[in-house]
Parts: sequence; structure tokens; C-alpha cells
Amino acid sequence: MPTLDICFSPDLLPLYDLRGRIAVVVDILRATSSIVTALAQGVAHLVPVETLAECRALAADNYLTAAERDGVQAEGVDLGNSPFGYLDGAVPVQGRNVAITTTNGTRAMHLSRAADEVVVGAFLNLGAVADFLRQQGRDVIVVCAGWKGHFCLEDTLFGGALAALLAPDFDVTSSDATLAALDLWEKASPDVAAYLLKSAHVRRLNRLEAHKDMEFCVRQDEYNLVPVWREGKIVKL
Amino acid sequence: MPTLDICFSPDLLPLYDLRGRIAVVVDILRATSSIVTALAQGVAHLVPVETLAECRALAADNYLTAAERDGVQAEGVDLGNSPFGYLDGAVPVQGRNVAITTTNGTRAMHLSRAADEVVVGAFLNLGAVADFLRQQGRDVIVVCAGWKGHFCLEDTLFGGALAALLAPDFDVTSSDATLAALDLWEKASPDVAAYLLKSAHVRRLNRLEAHKDMEFCVRQDEYNLVPVWREGKIVKL
Repeated sequence: MPTLDICFSPDLLPLYDLRGRIAVVVDILRATSSIVTALAQGVAHLVPVETLAECRALAADNYLTAAERDGVQAEGVDLGNSPFGYLDGAVPVQGRNVAITTTNGTRAMHLSRAADEVVVGAFLNLGAVADFLRQQGRDVIVVCAGWKGHFCLEDTLFGGALAALLAPDFDVTSSDATLAALDLWEKASPDVAAYLLKSAHVRRLNRLEAHKDMEFCVRQDEYNLVPVWREGKIVKL
Repeated sequence: MPTLDICFSPDLLPLYDLRGRIAVVVDILRATSSIVTALAQGVAHLVPVETLAECRALAADNYLTAAERDGVQAEGVDLGNSPFGYLDGAVPVQGRNVAITTTNGTRAMHLSRAADEVVVGAFLNLGAVADFLRQQGRDVIVVCAGWKGHFCLEDTLFGGALAALLAPDFDVTSSDATLAALDLWEKASPDVAAYLLKSAHVRRLNRLEAHKDMEFCVRQDEYNLVPVWREGKIVKL
């Protein structure tokens, strides 16, 4: 039976052998939610880069640039880290490519490179990711982007929600991290937004940008697509 | 208001500035439970060492040696990692000094050295630790020993139990880790042993040694003492 483990921080990834596994990278607030939204809105592909300089450099290749640092849009780029940047029409995104860098999300992706496949997960595409993983039947590790290496509730809840969907066909009991995430999900699932209002990260986001981002990012199955990171590009499967 | 944060793995300690904080190191199964028990049974002091070689070397200075690797007693030492080693009388411990090394616990202690004070916490002395911290009124970080760097339920539950005792005089809501631990503790507290039976670590321990260790290690307030690590020695405060 394939296993589902959860890594609570990119800083703990050295403990895991990613080979042979599918890594589901999750940064609910907001990188992976935005990536899913971008592809749903017709973005052709995204390139996750680690630095602002790399991000800006890709503008020369006709990329839209999306960058956030410490929760706010970086200077001189087209988009921030809000999924609404791909929805509000202020910047037309259909058919465009996007270079994206965020505080936590892109770092988590780059550190997950050793996995057989890197999938982008969010509540927005939770069901689609679960279906894909079930189809693949391989060991899964959910890589929580966290906040600057720290444990985050919202990414953990995604891990719990995914484990709940994949049990009992996946082993979700051999990892204490997965067991904890399942219990937290059980507690939070009746009203995820209300639960997350107490989280440190959400309160940080509240200060920095509208609360509506969070409410959007916890919607489940808004989009039926699975983004994968292949040959440097995040594309719809 | 002083804060209470929880570090889920020694591998995440580089994220924290320990200066000015009290570190409560916890390895419920079983290092810190055994240390608390040892001091309660009249051990004069313990020296946590990182390697088996250092541990054995201290035998020449009339130390009792306690060592465990991967859950079982190491070769050629006096004691393993079970608190019952200090209780069953097979090895008289009253007035003795003990050199101790374990898979996770002593490593967590050594990595916590930068803190203003390193306190040894366990369910067995939960109330005493809480009283001490309340008295001190300084920022607290609970350092979970985990299992080879991985998140562990039992150490997290201790963090949640401590946070529940110290709220509302300590800020227990600014850290997602503390919030998660509180929720897990709320779920587990009616029957901690039953809750932990599902944990990966406990099942590992079950295979390796008697289940009775776990049941003992989750008893609360069995001992009213606070071990601190000062000048290389763990002593009763």
C-alpha cells in the first residue's frame, strides 16, 4: 500500500528520500493557490524562480512577472501573490507565461526537485490532486511550504484533507505528522476559514492584504486541474 | 506577555533565536521521562553526552552509564532508556551520577544550549515545569526531541499540555505550532495513552520494549521537580 507522509517544513526535507515519491507542494497562502488559479485562467505555463532578479530577467522573454516578499507584491513586477491577480482582469493572463517567486512556495518546490514528480496542490484543486495520486498509486509526500521554515496550520490542513481523501487506500497511519494533520483537519473541516482566522499566518496576511484571499484559498475543488513541474515549467497535466 | 512557542524538531532549531528564552526539552519516549525519574529516585546529577564512547568513558569516573540506540539498550552499559531502570532496583541509583545518551533526547538538549536556561520536561513533572516557567515569566520554547528529526505526537502533546497550563498568562496564539499542539492536546487529553497507541513512535516502542513504559511516561505530575542543565550537569533545581 502506498504511504502518505507530510513534511511540515522545507527545512525538514533533508530527512526524506524523495526518490520514487510524488511530492505535492502546498503553500495555501498563497503561492500554490495562485498557481492553480493561474493555470485555470489560461496561463500557459509558470516558471518558479528563487530570486527576484531571475524573475525580473524573464520579463525580457515576454514573461509576466509575479513576485511577493513578506506577504506584499514586490516592486516593479506585474503581479503579486494573490490569486485574484489572475482573476480580476487588470493584467490579461490568457495564453501568457508567468515567472513567479514567493517567500516560501517556490523555495519548497525547488527543494522538492529530487521527487519523481512535483505536483502543485491547493484546496482549490484538492480533489483533482487526490484523483491523480490514487491513479498513480505511488508513495506521496506532502511538502508544506510553511512560513520561512516554520510550521503553518493552513498547509498542514491541506495535508490532512488529502490524507482523509486517500485513506484507506493509502497508508496514512505510519507517520505521526500525517496522524496529526488528520486530527487537525477533522477539527477544522467544518469551517476552515473560521479555523484559520486564529492562525498566525492568516493574521499576518490580514494585516497585509484583504481577508478575501484566505476565504478564496480555502475553497475546495474550485478547479479540476493538476499542475506538474516538468523541465522547469509548471503546466497543466 | 511572555510567549510560548514549540519547535517540532531539533532540525528546526536554527530558525529560532534561543537567547533570552527558556528551552524546555522534551523527549517523552523516553529520555526526559527517564531523567525526571532518575532525579526523583535520588540520582545526584546526569550528564547528557552525544556519543556512546563519551558515555562509556565516564564509567571511569564512577558514573553509571545509560544508553539507548534505536529504542534498545546499548551494549555494555548499566541502564537503557526506560524510566523503570531507575525504579526497579536492579541497579542501585541513589546518590549516583549518570552519563546518558539517547537517539533523540540528548541531541535536542545539546542543540538547545544557546537558551538562557535548559529545562527538562516530561508529563511526569508537567506541573512543576509550568510553575517554574510562570515564576520566571520569560519567553519559552518547547524543543521536541522528535524521532531522528521527525515530528512526534507525544512530544507535541506535552507542548500542548504545557501551553494549556500557561494560558492565558503566556501568549500561546502567535505560533501556529503552539495552536496545533493545543488542538491535538485537547483531542488527546481525555486518554493520552489510548491516543498515543496510534502513533508511529509508540508502535515502534511496542515492538522494542514493554508497553508499560509508555503508560508510565504519560502520567502527569508524578514528580514535583524541575531538572535544569547547568555547567554540563542536569540537576534538580
